[in-house]
Amino acid sequence: MPRKPQYDRDDLINRARDLFWARGWAGTSLKDLEGELKLKPGSFYAAFGSKDALFELALRRYARDGTARLHNLAETHGALTALKLYPRLVIDTPDAPAKACMMTKTLLELQAQDHPLAGVANDNLRRMEQAFAQLFQQAQADKEIGATYDPFSLARRYQSDLLGLRMSAERTGVDALAIAQEIADGLDRL
Amino acid sequence: MPRKPQYDRDDLINRARDLFWARGWAGTSLKDLEGELKLKPGSFYAAFGSKDALFELALRRYARDGTARLHNLAETHGALTALKLYPRLVIDTPDAPAKACMMTKTLLELQAQDHPLAGVANDNLRRMEQAFAQLFQQAQADKEIGATYDPFSLARRYQSDLLGLRMSAERTGVDALAIAQEIADGLDRL
Repeated sequence: MPRKPQYDRDDLINRARDLFWARGWAGTSLKDLEGELKLKPGSFYAAFGSKDALFELALRRYARDGTARLHNLAETHGALTALKLYPRLVIDTPDAPAKACMMTKTLLELQAQDHPLAGVANDNLRRMEQAFAQLFQQAQADKEIGATYDPFSLARRYQSDLLGLRMSAERTGVDALAIAQEIADGLDRL
Repeated sequence: MPRKPQYDRDDLINRARDLFWARGWAGTSLKDLEGELKLKPGSFYAAFGSKDALFELALRRYARDGTARLHNLAETHGALTALKLYPRLVIDTPDAPAKACMMTKTLLELQAQDHPLAGVANDNLRRMEQAFAQLFQQAQADKEIGATYDPFSLARRYQSDLLGLRMSAERTGVDALAIAQEIADGLDRL
């Protein structure tokens, strides 16, 4: 019978994700990770190989969870309502380690260095944009928004505004919930 | 007669700003700075004191230049046209070390650590928001936009959308100029 691992791998990845999300790639050292995950260097290496490999796991999980949350919203409320609820949802998260999107933070930090993780972030942002476009298409099919709009242009702008919203939510003294409401209201005018 | 400094301080701050802007705070070491500015550690210390002190100088210059550019636009073109031109201007910058705003990048990187430079970034973003609000007020005084809008709400949303735009411009395969045009067109509907 194989020995049960001494740790819950899923939980470790979640904790690493939160640390990376809050502090970024350069701001999180191997030592920080080993401390947070309570792993000795040898166990860390055996479990994840490297900081970059773990960062990539964490980033992919972050992206997958974001898409899943969006799809759940759409199944429950329909496409347009999901798109209207999502802005508020992503910033109204008292337990999240940061308001800004982890993919964005990664891209901003690592793009200038041509780091491979910036490419992973880019790919995942693109996938998220496609998920938004599909919902705009669905909203058109459901006659919730006008048929003349290009769903890909709508998704591009919507995602851009969401990225701005999440950055605004990081600032002190900015009423980001009001911005989220304005983005939602804007969708009603389509 | 005082000895002429061996360096042009303004130029050094500009070069430091570009390095910090591209690579962030953690991604720029003292050694990187000394290499880029061609200063020995002793001269660096004598000129700037510390990496953080130089970062703050660079960030304040970045913010001051952004506000000056906005005011120049407004003097030449009037308030509303300045607000319409600015989104394109901030991303159509082939020589800039990054498309994303340096204040935003700093905030995202250092907010979670409660680093004092995150506070400097926050203050400067607030000042920029006030500059936008003044232009919206001016546009109302000039009868360019409706008098019923709250200029501070307009500025909050405009700045948020600009932050998103600049983030989108960092991504590969995104037509950020189209987003800039949409932001400008949106102002015409006010």
